[in-house]
Amino acid sequence: MSKEKPSIPKGTRDFGPAVVVKRNYIFGVIKRTFEKFGYLPLETPAMEQLSVLTGKYGDEGDQLIFKVLNSGDFLAKTKQADIDEGHKQLTRKISEKALRYDLTVPFARYVVMNRNDITFPFKRYQIQPVWRADRPQKGRYREFYQCDADVVGTNSLLCEAEIVQMINEVLTTLGLTDFTIKINHRGILAGIAEAIGEKGREGDICVAIDKLDKIGQEGVRKELLERGISEEAVTKLEPLYSLEGSNEAVLDQLHTLLGDTAEGQRGLKDLHDVWNYLSRLNSEALNAQNESGNPRLLLDVTLARGLSYYTGCIFEVKVNNVSMGSISGGGRYDNLTGMFGLPDVSGVGFSFGVDRIYDVIEELQLFPDSSQVGTKALIVQFDKESEIYALPVLQKLRDAGIASELYPEPAKLKKQMGYADQKSIPYVILIGSEEMASGKLKLRNMVLGEQQDLTIDDIISQLK
Amino acid sequence: MSKEKPSIPKGTRDFGPAVVVKRNYIFGVIKRTFEKFGYLPLETPAMEQLSVLTGKYGDEGDQLIFKVLNSGDFLAKTKQADIDEGHKQLTRKISEKALRYDLTVPFARYVVMNRNDITFPFKRYQIQPVWRADRPQKGRYREFYQCDADVVGTNSLLCEAEIVQMINEVLTTLGLTDFTIKINHRGILAGIAEAIGEKGREGDICVAIDKLDKIGQEGVRKELLERGISEEAVTKLEPLYSLEGSNEAVLDQLHTLLGDTAEGQRGLKDLHDVWNYLSRLNSEALNAQNESGNPRLLLDVTLARGLSYYTGCIFEVKVNNVSMGSISGGGRYDNLTGMFGLPDVSGVGFSFGVDRIYDVIEELQLFPDSSQVGTKALIVQFDKESEIYALPVLQKLRDAGIASELYPEPAKLKKQMGYADQKSIPYVILIGSEEMASGKLKLRNMVLGEQQDLTIDDIISQLK
Repeated sequence: MSKEKPSIPKGTRDFGPAVVVKRNYIFGVIKRTFEKFGYLPLETPAMEQLSVLTGKYGDEGDQLIFKVLNSGDFLAKTKQADIDEGHKQLTRKISEKALRYDLTVPFARYVVMNRNDITFPFKRYQIQPVWRADRPQKGRYREFYQCDADVVGTNSLLCEAEIVQMINEVLTTLGLTDFTIKINHRGILAGIAEAIGEKGREGDICVAIDKLDKIGQEGVRKELLERGISEEAVTKLEPLYSLEGSNEAVLDQLHTLLGDTAEGQRGLKDLHDVWNYLSRLNSEALNAQNESGNPRLLLDVTLARGLSYYTGCIFEVKVNNVSMGSISGGGRYDNLTGMFGLPDVSGVGFSFGVDRIYDVIEELQLFPDSSQVGTKALIVQFDKESEIYALPVLQKLRDAGIASELYPEPAKLKKQMGYADQKSIPYVILIGSEEMASGKLKLRNMVLGEQQDLTIDDIISQLK
Repeated sequence: MSKEKPSIPKGTRDFGPAVVVKRNYIFGVIKRTFEKFGYLPLETPAMEQLSVLTGKYGDEGDQLIFKVLNSGDFLAKTKQADIDEGHKQLTRKISEKALRYDLTVPFARYVVMNRNDITFPFKRYQIQPVWRADRPQKGRYREFYQCDADVVGTNSLLCEAEIVQMINEVLTTLGLTDFTIKINHRGILAGIAEAIGEKGREGDICVAIDKLDKIGQEGVRKELLERGISEEAVTKLEPLYSLEGSNEAVLDQLHTLLGDTAEGQRGLKDLHDVWNYLSRLNSEALNAQNESGNPRLLLDVTLARGLSYYTGCIFEVKVNNVSMGSISGGGRYDNLTGMFGLPDVSGVGFSFGVDRIYDVIEELQLFPDSSQVGTKALIVQFDKESEIYALPVLQKLRDAGIASELYPEPAKLKKQMGYADQKSIPYVILIGSEEMASGKLKLRNMVLGEQQDLTIDDIISQLK
């Protein structure tokens, strides 16, 4: 056969059974946590109207949206002039739909379309793939899952406190212990800008200090100056990079620094409220320390993430001592649905990066054996006689809820045992002539390599 | 604001929380059944190379594939000649990727790409959405889920028997009792064609008799004659439409009719084997009857489904007394991976139509209350004092694994109760000054409308 070898598009992945099972374990932990906190699932279509997505992610984002070609004769209504104007103009003519780029815009679109039916506050979670025409590289894919939880229609800071709790619960349930939940507030950043004499310039300041980890204090200084922040302001700013002491001590220092800025006051009050909620909830996130002795929940005034649409608290989570970017993040926004003409819907949300969490859990070998859901017992087939004997045995196992298989052919024993190995089936049942005569079947524990002669009822009680 | 009202592409759907929860209940039953029979999950990318999909679904199918526009300047390598040749030629130049059209071709592609790592027989299930540019209409969507299970790499008819069992188990677990699993065999159809003197014409015969339900015996006769089947053959064929008696009696009649055709013999032998397996498994599918008194598993020689790639047993499932097409179907194929240059991989698979199953379960009101996974208890917030009291109560409930919420604001009681109603939250906890003083909280059962005064520990034991 001369047929071409098939392949998959670059940046996309097949997930074989072993990986799907582990991914589902992570999704399961996330879902159960979301639901425990009153969030309910929403699913939106993979395709959205291109007009719904365009203009929401900046010019660069617009380029990274996968557009779907109109079906049928997409050229029918296209004029030569459209083609001559180049691909951007032509795209609008031949493509009306596009693949979901994130879960936030579809959520906003859903809220606006269903605002008369939704009971607010509306707490929804959404776990679905998104697609981006990014250049694929290690850890960056063109198809990947996002796991978002958002609540819209309330200003209560209890929501922020519960987000901290949900992050803590998901990560500790997955077995992680050494991680840091960084928190900051957009008001703090605005207050800082004002306090150093650069009111309204928090956007530029944030873009620069967001790179502190990567380019260091000198690099940030250079960028700030290039962005037109005065040298005096930059000098005033720098002590903030290394605010020291407990969260409370940092809050105290900020009080002094930001005391008379309205935005700074707002940020401090909100953070105090979040701390109060967590304290009354006796939250583990508030009380735990990471391995370096720092608090797990850390107020970090250099945290600047996604300032363009966040307006209140912002979050970001890093696993310590693992070379991996942030695995979760989010924040409060005041005007998410404004893009679709529905103003003043405040909300707060966050997202887990499942690909990164998967890699961390794998690296730290934290996947439990119980995340292996496959077949529990394989019955070996020697010949027609053993097959006939095995069929009601198989049925009994399944009736007892035990995932089981009878090897479908009388293949060589080695092949059948290899099958069990490959599928990580923990038990193999062997039924030879002796076993058929005695009614005691050989149960082989594939992990320990031990064998026992047991009746089918004993096997069932052992495997259940 | 003058912004356009947002919408979703026609033929696609948002699934709000109540619907997602019910759909997940169905998916859960299907998954658990597949896994009990040793099938493991596979997930493939939403986008495939267009070349992988093209030519696999016939000309009409090719037109219904959603193509994804190349990212960047897709016109850069396009010549005016490509445009002049029309949209079909141009599509090849500006689109390399396309959305998954079914789960079968991606599965075949996966098997071929991973044939050296897969242990055969390979039993996989796959539950993912597919996209088709069909004209949307009632019950037909442009995005819908398929639930496929296939085993490749074995000829054993135990697989066919287990498919009958899985169909039976999924549907009975969902609460359905009156359904018919139709089974037939491609060899029977070929044997019939030969026996009536039209050897090799089973394709035409099948297309026609597939319409028996819709156009009746006269309509089928007309179509068969138009397709060039001789009048004598058609007359010989017609008694088969109404073969009577038990499955065994039908098999006996077929033996007489097909006795000397090789294909007929093959079909009869396979069906006998499937029946033997089911009998030794003491399968409920074999023993149960539907409400009209016919056997649940029914040999139907007029069942013709998808003859183009099936080569052995074929299945189709209908729920009786509900106006709904088939909710499941499948069959054995001998050459699924041949399209990608890997011949002789025999397999058998089937698929559940989840949208249809959902509609049936909804119509028959078979969704159990337990498929409502949401919040179990809502704590009402009266004022700051009750909020502070409620926070540790909330934490206790969640620590006990009870999905709970504290209403995040001191809104009017009516609004908070409405929220509980809308989310179908079964219990509301009210904490007024009296309750704070006594430590006995008011637990309101929203279904019964009854209230009890209980300590938090009593509430937890009641709700667990």
